Amino acid sequence: MALVGTRTALMSESVTSGELREKIHHFPVRVYYAETDAGGVVYHASYLSYAERARTEMLRLLGFDHVRQREQYGMMWVVRGIEADFRRPAHLDDLLDIRSTLVYLGGASLHVDQAIWRGDEEVAALRVRLACMHIAGRPVRIPAALRQALQEFLKEAD
Amino acid sequence: MALVGTRTALMSESVTSGELREKIHHFPVRVYYAETDAGGVVYHASYLSYAERARTEMLRLLGFDHVRQREQYGMMWVVRGIEADFRRPAHLDDLLDIRSTLVYLGGASLHVDQAIWRGDEEVAALRVRLACMHIAGRPVRIPAALRQALQEFLKEAD
Amino acid sequence: MALVGTRTALMSESVTSGELREKIHHFPVRVYYAETDAGGVVYHASYLSYAERARTEMLRLLGFDHVRQREQYGMMWVVRGIEADFRRPAHLDDLLDIRSTLVYLGGASLHVDQAIWRGDEEVAALRVRLACMHIAGRPVRIPAALRQALQEFLKEAD
Amino acid sequence: MALVGTRTALMSESVTSGELREKIHHFPVRVYYAETDAGGVVYHASYLSYAERARTEMLRLLGFDHVRQREQYGMMWVVRGIEADFRRPAHLDDLLDIRSTLVYLGGASLHVDQAIWRGDEEVAALRVRLACMHIAGRPVRIPAALRQALQEFLKEAD
Repeated sequence: MALVGTRTALMSESVTSGELREKIHHFPVRVYYAETDAGGVVYHASYLSYAERARTEMLRLLGFDHVRQREQYGMMWVVRGIEADFRRPAHLDDLLDIRSTLVYLGGASLHVDQAIWRGDEEVAALRVRLACMHIAGRPVRIPAALRQALQEFLKEAD
Repeated sequence: MALVGTRTALMSESVTSGELREKIHHFPVRVYYAETDAGGVVYHASYLSYAERARTEMLRLLGFDHVRQREQYGMMWVVRGIEADFRRPAHLDDLLDIRSTLVYLGGASLHVDQAIWRGDEEVAALRVRLACMHIAGRPVRIPAALRQALQEFLKEAD
Repeated sequence: MALVGTRTALMSESVTSGELREKIHHFPVRVYYAETDAGGVVYHASYLSYAERARTEMLRLLGFDHVRQREQYGMMWVVRGIEADFRRPAHLDDLLDIRSTLVYLGGASLHVDQAIWRGDEEVAALRVRLACMHIAGRPVRIPAALRQALQEFLKEAD
Repeated sequence: MALVGTRTALMSESVTSGELREKIHHFPVRVYYAETDAGGVVYHASYLSYAERARTEMLRLLGFDHVRQREQYGMMWVVRGIEADFRRPAHLDDLLDIRSTLVYLGGASLHVDQAIWRGDEEVAALRVRLACMHIAGRPVRIPAALRQALQEFLKEAD
């Protein structure tokens, strides 16, 4: 039905993948009840989910969404490690900005720094280590086309 | 800093509150890993969180975000009951459209029908019963200004 | 290593599957931060996860854990619908008792009433409709051995 | 009612707080659907929730549950940082053993190593940095009675 098609098209424009500017991916997240806890703040593990959303959208902007990675390349990313500093509490209804930077690109691994900001305050800082895995479970080299896309956004060592 | 202010302004435009069209609120949701389960599909309880995001944004569009409800009116909404039918599985990376309709407005209660669509397929249908509560915990009448805003979007009984 | 074996054995005794008494399965749940929200209470969708844990353990006590259902029978349960009433708030550190009763057994479906109690107060009441699915995704009849086990705990119609 | 009282007493015995042996707290966790993802494994952020359950129960065994900490001492613990290595995937229905060790006790801070085992395989290793906070939000010294209890289980530096 034409009407449904039109509406769906409108919808796909209205959910954001964030934007890439000067090798930083910016992704906005709104805080809802589900991610808060009885301390009145965002539950610490929720920041990891926010960060995962941002990485997914960064890869989508580079042309590599989950479906393409799985179906065309038979691969997926697995989180191997995380270092997180939780600096300030975030609250219900806050609008956060996840700023992701690629800081290391290995043969089968990728490190991403993800800082979570609210206005001009840093709420949390994560470093996430990812491994490129064949969907059957073993590590594999990052496919050349994906590597090339990642390389372009890799931040030079300071 | 002016730069930060500009960026923040850009960010607040890029996270959507959905839109109200003909008494239906449409809100887009992307499915991420956190909301899926080992069955390969969206975990059934995740739909309740999606629906809560949509209700929050519908109220924001009507001018009543959580902060205003709490600070100006000393109130919050509490979920009293849910009827949910899970009709089709949704999957990682799906783009869903939450369509919310106000179907009943009582003195201190509100019922919302929330249908979750993917393209032209209905994935799940929820009816959610909400109670208006004073933040100290007892039921209170819906404030007049909020009632008026809700009344305008109440769907006529079929 | 013998020591590890002993410890593992001890561990498997210390995580409970609850108990079946007079056709009611009782399963205890402790409320932790992750399941609460900024309202200071258990987030409503968390009760669905608690209920799922209880159903899993009830089936385990009947001799049908997830692994056996999948590997021996190629089946899994899918939640088709839920009716939930949230009657009282539960709080951080509360000890809840999930009381599950089988109320309907069809050819490929099962309905379970799950009441969540804290001491002598009912916190929430759920009715959950489950479908028996082949792991490839289509509905299948409940295997005879599982049906027989369920039948024995089916509550007579009132 | 006597019957309810008896049942409640039985229930409180059946949910475990784990056990303290030679300065290691062991806490068993069963993996349910809610904590898994479409990769077929435990979602990485779920390990942080498992670890939080274990810390809560360790403190309960030491005599300091959340309610006592808040009501008697006006304090709570806040997670300041986490280092996590995810070594092997855990799966639906796995029985995990969270082994927590206190490795640093400061004036207002506590560091806990939390290793997550399945049988004789290490699934994940976390180091969690906690701050003692007044419930109004500022850091406070750890109360003397709690400090004494923690000191006793502090692991000697290797």
